[in-house]
Amino acid sequence: MNTKRRDSDPERRDFLYALAGAAVGGTIGSHASSPRGKEQPQSQEGEFALGDLQLQSGTTLRKAKLAYKTHGRLNAVKSNVILYPTQYAAQHTDVEWIIGPGRALDSDKYFIIVLDQLGNGVSSSPSNTPPPQDRIRFPTITIRDDIAAQYRLVTEGFGIRRIALVTGYSMGAQQAFQWAASHPDMVERIAPFCGTAKTTPHNAVFLEGLRAALTADAAWMKGDYRDQPVQGLRAFARVYAGWGFSQQFYKQEVYRQMGFVSLEDCLTGFWEKRYMRRDANNLLSMLRTWQLNDLGATSGFGGNLDRALSTIKAKATVMAGQTDLYFPPVDIEAEAARIPGARFRVIPSLWGHMAGAGLNSTDSRFIEDEIRALLAA
Amino acid sequence: MNTKRRDSDPERRDFLYALAGAAVGGTIGSHASSPRGKEQPQSQEGEFALGDLQLQSGTTLRKAKLAYKTHGRLNAVKSNVILYPTQYAAQHTDVEWIIGPGRALDSDKYFIIVLDQLGNGVSSSPSNTPPPQDRIRFPTITIRDDIAAQYRLVTEGFGIRRIALVTGYSMGAQQAFQWAASHPDMVERIAPFCGTAKTTPHNAVFLEGLRAALTADAAWMKGDYRDQPVQGLRAFARVYAGWGFSQQFYKQEVYRQMGFVSLEDCLTGFWEKRYMRRDANNLLSMLRTWQLNDLGATSGFGGNLDRALSTIKAKATVMAGQTDLYFPPVDIEAEAARIPGARFRVIPSLWGHMAGAGLNSTDSRFIEDEIRALLAA
Repeated sequence: MNTKRRDSDPERRDFLYALAGAAVGGTIGSHASSPRGKEQPQSQEGEFALGDLQLQSGTTLRKAKLAYKTHGRLNAVKSNVILYPTQYAAQHTDVEWIIGPGRALDSDKYFIIVLDQLGNGVSSSPSNTPPPQDRIRFPTITIRDDIAAQYRLVTEGFGIRRIALVTGYSMGAQQAFQWAASHPDMVERIAPFCGTAKTTPHNAVFLEGLRAALTADAAWMKGDYRDQPVQGLRAFARVYAGWGFSQQFYKQEVYRQMGFVSLEDCLTGFWEKRYMRRDANNLLSMLRTWQLNDLGATSGFGGNLDRALSTIKAKATVMAGQTDLYFPPVDIEAEAARIPGARFRVIPSLWGHMAGAGLNSTDSRFIEDEIRALLAA
Repeated sequence: MNTKRRDSDPERRDFLYALAGAAVGGTIGSHASSPRGKEQPQSQEGEFALGDLQLQSGTTLRKAKLAYKTHGRLNAVKSNVILYPTQYAAQHTDVEWIIGPGRALDSDKYFIIVLDQLGNGVSSSPSNTPPPQDRIRFPTITIRDDIAAQYRLVTEGFGIRRIALVTGYSMGAQQAFQWAASHPDMVERIAPFCGTAKTTPHNAVFLEGLRAALTADAAWMKGDYRDQPVQGLRAFARVYAGWGFSQQFYKQEVYRQMGFVSLEDCLTGFWEKRYMRRDANNLLSMLRTWQLNDLGATSGFGGNLDRALSTIKAKATVMAGQTDLYFPPVDIEAEAARIPGARFRVIPSLWGHMAGAGLNSTDSRFIEDEIRALLAA
C-alpha cells in the first residue's frame, strides 16, 4: 500500500506505522499499547495511491490518489468499520461533527474512515492533477468510480472485508447507496441522509444553474484560469443560498442561531465563505458527478434503478430533510420503498437541505439517534 | 392627456380617437357605433406621458411614460374596468392568454387595461430612458411607484373612478395588493395569483442568485454594456429554470406537454428564450423592485404588513400555486388570512410558479373560474 503523509503536523503520528499495526491484526483494536509499545493514534490522515484508475467513462485517470482520514481503532476481527464518504465540496476535515467519543460515529467503538470524494481538492482533482489531465481536462468521475477507488483502499489498503455501516450526507448518501448496491455482501448497514440513489431531473437543473452562474464569469477562462473566477464563485454561492435552506428558514431568520445578524450577513458569512474557498474546476467536476449519478446504471441492473435498490441487502435507515428543496422527501421516500426492509425517516426541520450538515444540534441529534439505533440493530 | 402611438400598425386605430370617445361618456360602451360613426377598437396599445414622476426613493424620474394596452370597451358609466398589471419581465403582449371574448377577462364585457410595469422595456426603463437616467443609472422603482403611475393613467387619462377588478400574476399580484391598499374605496375586487403583498426573505435570496448570475458576466460592464451580456443572461435563465417549475414537473417530464423533448430542450427552448430576449438592466431594475416590495411600507401603515392587509376593502380571491417554490402557498395563505373576507385558493398543479403563467389549460381554467366567480360576486 502506498501512502504518504499529507502535511507536516508534528502532532500527527506516522500513518504508515498505524496502518502496519492494523495490518498485523489482533493487536491494534484494544486501548492497550500497540506491538511497538505506542498507542495507535485516534485519528490519522492518509492518502492511498490508486495507480492508473480505469473510469466508467472509458478514460484512465493516471496516478490517481484517494485521500481519507481515520478515526478510532480497527478492532482485531475488523468488524467495527464505518465508511463515511464526503459530500459535495467537502473535505474530510469538514464533516467531523458526527464523529468522536459519544457521537453516533463513536471513535471509541468504531474505526471510521472518512473518504474524500474524487474531485474534492485532496483526492485526485482538477486542481491537483498534473497535465495532461489537469484543470478542465480532468476526466469525468462517476459515483461508481468513487466507490471503486474507495473499495480498493478498504480491501487492499486495510484488508477489510466487512463494513458495519456506510453513512453519508447528500452526495455522501449517493455514495452510501452505491456501496450497498455494488457490494451487497460486504455492507451490513447504510444510513444515507438527504440524498438520492439517482439524481432527479430537477436536482440536475438546480445544479445546472450553479454551473451556469460560475461559468458566466469570463475569468473562468473555460477552466484555464490562473486566478480563481471570483465573481463566478460568488454567484455560485449566492445561487446556492436559495436552495440550501428552506423558505421558512429565511423567513424566521433561523440564521441568527448561527450568529448571522442579517440576510446579507448570512449570504456573505455562510454561503460565500463556504464556496469561495474552493477551486472552480473542482466544484464543476463534482457537480458533473452529482448530475450523472444513477444507481441503476450499476453493472448488472440494465439502467433499472428499482432493481438496483431491490438488491441491497444492507439494513437501511434512509433519512430526508422535511424542507429539503433539491432532495425533497418524496423522492427519497420513493427510493427507500424499493430497498427491502428499509426504514424511512423525515428530519423535522426548517433547515432545508442543511438539516444534514451538522449545523444545528436538534437535527444532528435526530440523525445521530437514527444511526445509533441502526448500529444496534 | 399625452398619448402617442407606439407603432405604425395600419390596422391599429388611433388611440386618441378612442380615448376621446371614452371621455365623452355614455356613447362608447355599446357595441353600436361611436359618436363619430366608427366602432371603438377592440384593443389598443398606448403610452401615457407621466411627466416628471416623483419616486418613493426621493428621486424624480424625468419624462416618465407608462405603456399599456386596452381590450374591450369602456361602458357608459365606466363600471366595467379591469386592471391587469404585468408580471416580472413581461410586456403587455405577453400576458393576453386570460383576455378575450369568453375568457375570464372578457373583452366583450369588460374594459381591460394591461399596465406595463416600469422597467419592463416599454414603460420607462433603463433601456429606453435618456441620460442621465439611462441604463444602470435608472432610479430604483417600487411597486408603489408603479401604482402611482398607473393611478394617474386610470384617473387622469381615462377618468375612471371605480375599478371592478385588479388582477395579476406574480409581481402583477404584488401590484394588485398595492392597488387595493392604496385605493381601498376605488377597487372593488382583487384576484392576485402566485404572489405576495410583501416579498419574503427567501424570495429575495432567490432573486439575489439571479442577480449574481447575471452580473457575474464581465460583459455586463457594471451596466454600461453596448452588447447584452449573453453569458450572464444565459446563466440567469438557467438559474431561473430550477425555480420556475416544481421538482415533480421535471421528474414527470411535464415539459413534454409544451413540446420540449428533453430537459436541455426545455432549458434552451423555454427558459433561455424567455429571458435572453430581455435587456439586462431592465431585468435588474425589475428584480430590485420585486426584492423591495412591502405593502406594509405604504404610507399610513408604519411598516405594518398585517395592518395594510387588514384595510383592504376589496372582495379578494387570492390564489397560490400548490408547488410554487418562491411564492409558496403557506406565505400567500398567511397574508390572505389578514384581508377581511378574502378567499384563499390553491391551484392544484405540478407547474410550480408557472401554474399562473397561462401555459397549461388546466391551471388556466382553475384561475379563470375563480376570477369569473369573483366578478359575479
